[in-house]
Amino acid sequence: MGPAVGQPKHDSGGPNAVDRLAALLAEDLAAVDALIHQHMTSPVGVIPNLAAHLIDAGGKRIRPLITLAAARLLGRGGDGPRKLAAAVEFIHSATLLHDDVVDVSEMRRGKKAANVVWGNSASVLVGDFLFARSFNLMVETGDIQVLDILARAASVIAEGEVMQLAAANDAETTRERYMQIIAAKTAALFAAAAKAGAVAAGRPGQEAELLETYGRELGLAFQLVDDALDYGGLAAAMGKNTGDDFREGKVTLPVVFARDAGDESERAFWRRAMGGDRSEDDFPRALALLRRHDAISQTLAAARAHAERAQAALSTLPANAYRDALSDIADFVIERGY
Amino acid sequence: MGPAVGQPKHDSGGPNAVDRLAALLAEDLAAVDALIHQHMTSPVGVIPNLAAHLIDAGGKRIRPLITLAAARLLGRGGDGPRKLAAAVEFIHSATLLHDDVVDVSEMRRGKKAANVVWGNSASVLVGDFLFARSFNLMVETGDIQVLDILARAASVIAEGEVMQLAAANDAETTRERYMQIIAAKTAALFAAAAKAGAVAAGRPGQEAELLETYGRELGLAFQLVDDALDYGGLAAAMGKNTGDDFREGKVTLPVVFARDAGDESERAFWRRAMGGDRSEDDFPRALALLRRHDAISQTLAAARAHAERAQAALSTLPANAYRDALSDIADFVIERGY
Repeated sequence: MGPAVGQPKHDSGGPNAVDRLAALLAEDLAAVDALIHQHMTSPVGVIPNLAAHLIDAGGKRIRPLITLAAARLLGRGGDGPRKLAAAVEFIHSATLLHDDVVDVSEMRRGKKAANVVWGNSASVLVGDFLFARSFNLMVETGDIQVLDILARAASVIAEGEVMQLAAANDAETTRERYMQIIAAKTAALFAAAAKAGAVAAGRPGQEAELLETYGRELGLAFQLVDDALDYGGLAAAMGKNTGDDFREGKVTLPVVFARDAGDESERAFWRRAMGGDRSEDDFPRALALLRRHDAISQTLAAARAHAERAQAALSTLPANAYRDALSDIADFVIERGY
Repeated sequence: MGPAVGQPKHDSGGPNAVDRLAALLAEDLAAVDALIHQHMTSPVGVIPNLAAHLIDAGGKRIRPLITLAAARLLGRGGDGPRKLAAAVEFIHSATLLHDDVVDVSEMRRGKKAANVVWGNSASVLVGDFLFARSFNLMVETGDIQVLDILARAASVIAEGEVMQLAAANDAETTRERYMQIIAAKTAALFAAAAKAGAVAAGRPGQEAELLETYGRELGLAFQLVDDALDYGGLAAAMGKNTGDDFREGKVTLPVVFARDAGDESERAFWRRAMGGDRSEDDFPRALALLRRHDAISQTLAAARAHAERAQAALSTLPANAYRDALSDIADFVIERGY
């Protein structure tokens, strides 16, 4: 399964694990992209325009790649997994559109967010359209079991988003609560993407469950690293805009670690700042407290533990190039944080 | 099929046709309400609270009643049609929540709109939740054909909503364009509700198509009457807040009629007012122009024609109490405008 999780590889200057998986699945992925573009067409011009703005902006397609790889790992390619992969990307895209409205985001994938260009209303409604189209794609597979998996994931994602909204500016958010939120808003779709691939491959039993575990653990690792990167990661030099979570009053795991390890005056700072009474001047202090308590390394260590569980779930599945690639993805997710 | 469409009935002081259909389907409807409440539960408190605020506010449940009646008309009750009826109400509820965000609505069903009480973000996300739950309910029926019908309707509805958004403040909106919008945003769900009931009854052929036509034509009639009522209807004394469409720059059929029949100065008024440069003082003039050109009666006459087509679609279906009740609903929809 390659070197230990999170250790930079010798070939780290080459294509990363996602690019390598995309190359391995190049034919599938091209077909998925064709399905995506075919199903986002509409005579109502703003729909394909807004959808293309997001979908063609160079997202990594990591979720559909997982669906495709899970199916191939178990010996099945073809139409079914491709349609599901496109459906998974549509669910993800719809969620991003609605997220950006909720978070009043200005940027997404290095471009102006769709809500900035077309307005909140169009983003809400085109999100609805993509969400509906994801179900059209699933119906085309004729497989009620994958519909069940992805429809359940869709309601769990919405629950997670509402949970996150309700926890905003709640300075007392616990680690447990935070993990519930990211399990729902992020990991549920990774889990469903992997499981649906297995079920589409005609392997709904234990193999599907192992791939579901892989997806869930990978999704948790992915979100934890994202949340570390929102404070700049360990390098704090990613060129990425940092501090969005802080500004939005989202208590993520780095803050939980720093807050719970802090003395009374530090906890008072977090209570005030995460409770909603914060200014831009508070961000440097937040960063300093995260450093003092090693909160970013601790978060990355937690992510690494989940990535290792994701890899462990693969261990009894057929050993092939797809399994290796999925394992490498778990390494890659962690490496992003360093 | 009862008296001519749109003529007030002798028993108009008694229960209306929707109440009578609800009484005829009392057992089904109670089961649907139980399914609705069961599927809107969530450990995330704001979800059931916000959903109940809308769903328990006394909506007429006309769409689920149509699903139930279509199935019973063709001889089938039971679990399948009930789950679909609940799914249809969830799709409708999700649409209302998102509509109210898009339209910046303040009231809904005589109460503060959910977006006013909980905010736009919660309304968007709980709408997503209800939409996902509608698919959970459909999956429970195990019937991929009804999933197809309702998933298609869901994307058409979203297309219609985006079309309406794009047409806002477009003073030149044609009658044809307006009809496209309401066919998508309103009539598609009525059509799917009726067709899904027929398919759930095991009658996917011509009977399902006739019921689909019934639903579509009824939906068009329903929306036309709604749009007439937004200018007060013929009585202009419904106690309902009027003028929302005018204030939101929505060119509905009454405006199309008055504008197209107007002289140059009247057309200039509509161009300015519906083009976005309007004030509250313009509304009385708009009402006066609608009266001058009989635009409300013409709109109701157009609605009546659709209601008659809805009733005609029923004529070759089995004659029973459910068919009569569906026919009466078409009368009722028109009577609302008088």
